[in-house]
Amino acid sequence: MKTNKPTMGNIEILGLVAAAITTSGFVPQVYKIWKEKSTHDISLNMYLLLTLGLTLWLIYGINIESWPVILANGITLILVLGIVALKIKYK
Amino acid sequence: MKTNKPTMGNIEILGLVAAAITTSGFVPQVYKIWKEKSTHDISLNMYLLLTLGLTLWLIYGINIESWPVILANGITLILVLGIVALKIKYK
Repeated sequence: MKTNKPTMGNIEILGLVAAAITTSGFVPQVYKIWKEKSTHDISLNMYLLLTLGLTLWLIYGINIESWPVILANGITLILVLGIVALKIKYK
Repeated sequence: MKTNKPTMGNIEILGLVAAAITTSGFVPQVYKIWKEKSTHDISLNMYLLLTLGLTLWLIYGINIESWPVILANGITLILVLGIVALKIKYK
């Protein structure tokens, strides 16, 4: 019985899809802040922690040479920094 | 000249630290919502996308047998689902 063990290609594709979704997940929040100019309910501490963590993830991804991890965390870091800036602007 | 190439141990530790920080990053947001009972500025779409993406990351981490990726995304998924529930509750 041939088990359909995901080949390396499948796993990388899965990682890239996961990366694309979690990364693009931050776009609606950036858009909502940009549109409504209101950030009261958003936790600055969360986004500062995410900035630090995402930077370490980026270094981790480079070390394990995993494109999904590098791409996801690099782009997310840019979006998160955007939210930090907007949070400070519309305190 | 001996280059200080990070050994496998160092990289896994880096991954676990990155995982701990990005995962715990969501805790201040959960606490802020719980305390203030207000979620207007928070994007539900963001947290729904994150729920989907984190689920795929979890499957990816299991496939590449990476504990940092599994732990980070598993715990974050629980926190994100908590925020989705609180967002719906305090619409």
